[in-house]
Amino acid sequence: MAIIETIPNVSEGRRPEVVERLVAAVRGTPGVRLLDYSSDASHNRSVLTLVGDGAPLKNAILALYETAVPAIDLRAHRGEHPRVGAVDVVPFVPIEGATMADCVALAHDVAAAVASRFGIPVYLYEEATNNPARKNLEDVRRGEFEGLAAKMTSPGWAPDFGPATPHETAGASVIGARMPLIAYNINLNTDRLDVARRIAAAIRHSSGGLRYVKAMGVMLEDRRVAQVSINLTNFQKTPIHRVFDLVAREAARYGVSILESEVIGLIPNAALVAAAEHYLQLERFGPAQILENKLRD
Amino acid sequence: MAIIETIPNVSEGRRPEVVERLVAAVRGTPGVRLLDYSSDASHNRSVLTLVGDGAPLKNAILALYETAVPAIDLRAHRGEHPRVGAVDVVPFVPIEGATMADCVALAHDVAAAVASRFGIPVYLYEEATNNPARKNLEDVRRGEFEGLAAKMTSPGWAPDFGPATPHETAGASVIGARMPLIAYNINLNTDRLDVARRIAAAIRHSSGGLRYVKAMGVMLEDRRVAQVSINLTNFQKTPIHRVFDLVAREAARYGVSILESEVIGLIPNAALVAAAEHYLQLERFGPAQILENKLRD
Repeated sequence: MAIIETIPNVSEGRRPEVVERLVAAVRGTPGVRLLDYSSDASHNRSVLTLVGDGAPLKNAILALYETAVPAIDLRAHRGEHPRVGAVDVVPFVPIEGATMADCVALAHDVAAAVASRFGIPVYLYEEATNNPARKNLEDVRRGEFEGLAAKMTSPGWAPDFGPATPHETAGASVIGARMPLIAYNINLNTDRLDVARRIAAAIRHSSGGLRYVKAMGVMLEDRRVAQVSINLTNFQKTPIHRVFDLVAREAARYGVSILESEVIGLIPNAALVAAAEHYLQLERFGPAQILENKLRD
Repeated sequence: MAIIETIPNVSEGRRPEVVERLVAAVRGTPGVRLLDYSSDASHNRSVLTLVGDGAPLKNAILALYETAVPAIDLRAHRGEHPRVGAVDVVPFVPIEGATMADCVALAHDVAAAVASRFGIPVYLYEEATNNPARKNLEDVRRGEFEGLAAKMTSPGWAPDFGPATPHETAGASVIGARMPLIAYNINLNTDRLDVARRIAAAIRHSSGGLRYVKAMGVMLEDRRVAQVSINLTNFQKTPIHRVFDLVAREAARYGVSILESEVIGLIPNAALVAAAEHYLQLERFGPAQILENKLRD
């Protein structure tokens, strides 16, 4: 059985009774495990994390729409976080025994079902689209729900599935496939925020750095430690050890060293194994040599 | 359910029909998985790898004795590998959800059963004994089957379980508990065997090096590469990255660098994660942050 992860983001984070019903809808779907959910009142948004095989996940996402669409009216929705839809974003992430191609196919299938069952326009994003204007979620969501009707009539912004106009209360949805994100911070042996900011600028894709790195410099005020705060969007193509080594080199330029690093939340085992392989200069090594994999064959 | 590994070594590697019956005996035990087995004709010895919870493993080992004892006569056994018994060595190794203490208790339980059912003297070794003279398998096995009767009457060599004299055809058994072994080789950017030998002497426990390292220098003749060939007997206390870094430092003393390293056979995932944590200077990290562990909770 394949394991795919989906992390639907729903535009409701203030009415606990609605969040409870959303959670109940996905929890009640056979073959799906709810790993986590959290709501943010200031964002007025909830994020759920589910895992399962493709078919059960599709059922769970459709059950989520079934509950969310009648319960959420974006015309009255206020919150700090940008959004275009009641069910705003649905990424599918390959975890085990599933490829990116499987997740792209699943995203297309779910997008078509959402459009036809609920009359909601759907944009595909990241790996699920070949359209460069739709690769980045931020680009698709720009203008938000309030600007959606105008955006949809502008050149290049017809949806991938569904009607050419927003759903009156539920707006549109952005559905796609992506690699697991790794939230990774590197703390520096300095309280100089400018150094952290320069390093972040050097390593991030948007200003000339590594392809799958987003980064910014921040200050941990309580510890007086400058931090390079990083999102790694594809750890297979931009491995964590390359980011670490590059930060160390850039820091040395300012006479600064690395104090420590930390993973926020979850990290795929393969990202850690790749780092071990790199530093230990392991050759002729494969995942079949990991004892736990052998046990689970 | 706990996962314990046991790797019984049996003194028969030339008669395939006997090996088949040994394999069938453990395979037929409910709750046990045979991961691997191999026979070596020059050693005249077979090694089986089984996993399961404690109680099924005990049944499998007793079934193995049931088949091996009548089939193997050590008085007629010849082979390059040292041995004292028909079933020569039985280590129990904690893998998942089991502690070393569990494996020590299992070793004692199995040793008592083997002694009483088959009338075979049993020595406990490694973690299963507090007797320093019996910690190392090589010390217990010294003198082999041929010297066993004399050894058993010498001071300090009464067995831990069973009769004070060898079993006529099956000799004695050595049963114990140990950490998983990691077979790990580091290849040097040189064809100087003396450098590999000096490094091996520097890092191994027996000549003043790291506590859980056995090492020797060998020559990969076909590649003209000198190799430090290592057995790591406790990767939690002597981690693989410390061995790698120490070899790199010692090699630098001779103007030599590390070409590559390799794991032979299986390695516990935790050994690789520990290396990643070390080189990435990860702090506040725990196994619950590994995505796959979360999925299997």
